[in-house]
Amino acid sequence: MDVLEGKTCVLAALQAGRRIFEAVYVRQGIREDSIAALLEAADARGVPVRRVREEALDAKAHARSHGGILAVAQPLAPSAVPHPLDFALLLDGVDDARNFGYCLRSADAFGVQAVFLRRRAFDFDGGDVSRSSSGAYERLPVVLGDHVPETVRLLGCAAGTDRTIYDEDLRGPVCLALGGEKRGLSAAVRDRCAALVSIPTRPGAASLSLTHAAAVVMAEVLRQRSPRSPRGS
Amino acid sequence: MDVLEGKTCVLAALQAGRRIFEAVYVRQGIREDSIAALLEAADARGVPVRRVREEALDAKAHARSHGGILAVAQPLAPSAVPHPLDFALLLDGVDDARNFGYCLRSADAFGVQAVFLRRRAFDFDGGDVSRSSSGAYERLPVVLGDHVPETVRLLGCAAGTDRTIYDEDLRGPVCLALGGEKRGLSAAVRDRCAALVSIPTRPGAASLSLTHAAAVVMAEVLRQRSPRSPRGS
Repeated sequence: MDVLEGKTCVLAALQAGRRIFEAVYVRQGIREDSIAALLEAADARGVPVRRVREEALDAKAHARSHGGILAVAQPLAPSAVPHPLDFALLLDGVDDARNFGYCLRSADAFGVQAVFLRRRAFDFDGGDVSRSSSGAYERLPVVLGDHVPETVRLLGCAAGTDRTIYDEDLRGPVCLALGGEKRGLSAAVRDRCAALVSIPTRPGAASLSLTHAAAVVMAEVLRQRSPRSPRGS
Repeated sequence: MDVLEGKTCVLAALQAGRRIFEAVYVRQGIREDSIAALLEAADARGVPVRRVREEALDAKAHARSHGGILAVAQPLAPSAVPHPLDFALLLDGVDDARNFGYCLRSADAFGVQAVFLRRRAFDFDGGDVSRSSSGAYERLPVVLGDHVPETVRLLGCAAGTDRTIYDEDLRGPVCLALGGEKRGLSAAVRDRCAALVSIPTRPGAASLSLTHAAAVVMAEVLRQRSPRSPRGS
């Protein structure tokens, strides 16, 4: 079972309706107006809400971020590929739940429709991912594997490539592939990319982290797709 | 004393030459060719290198990331404001060492010259900051307070502002101010900003994290300053 900690995650999970809940647990004496939306969402889904003591919440929680609200629910099943697919992310080597969660949070904010996760198995703790993602994990389809549809242009982000993200037309259907920090993009993914592009940094700079590189490239997709014309420099 | 863990941090600190070292510790039996640059840098700075057992390293380390290399050194003193100052970051509410380190890593990669940290006291563990920053903390001036020179335009990043980072001319001397996730920019900083700007996200999206928002805005500064003309969309 996954333990979802904090109001943001629990509410996102209830609203998304993709999990089977055991129960939502709230701290006895919590301010009722602070959980009105939560109670309503739980009621709408038929999920029981149990009032428990702080110590009972602490005993179930992994981190110290529950703030009096927690849920126990079955893990999320991997998603199918959404159709049509216009904007996706492929993570090829993300190595911890927290970084994966941060990527999902940014991806959700920038309007990504699916995140492909290239990994033999999904062995992250779903509660940890959800917490780092501020609940984005509950909403955003995560597809296991790298079967990006052929109608979607696969673009690999690779430091040191001469062609930059600003040289590339990102307006058509696109999937941005990013590799892990140690090994970068795997040959299997790299070989299938329509192009490799880099994020300009200062000469001689060390690399960006995976999640920060992803945020910069996703922002650029949105910029190019914006109806407002971008500023010339 | 700060404990610097891992080759990247220790080498960055030795090369920057801004710390007073007690010693560098390396695991007995470590491959000599893997530490040649480190030994050379320590020798150039007159820093003793001690060969110790793995358990002695583990006992000094905070995390499990030392990989056989660790240093004990005095904390870094805050920096003075570099002059001239063309590109800076002001963090107003960053709340943990790891996020601060990630911001420094990106800032270093994007060519920021100084990071202003608005905080009563610098109470982060310097070793934790350095590790998260991949050593950028050793190179990049961190200035305590918010005394950004008046010759530098202070721009506040605030979600929901109609004016975006793409509407703004970022080519002159600029300092990007970002607030913490809970409270955003403080009134004291906001009131001094020449303008407030936002990062476009999908309608109804939750906010970006501080470090990811910072990376996107810093990348945009570099994009606008690039001699290559950016792609119109």
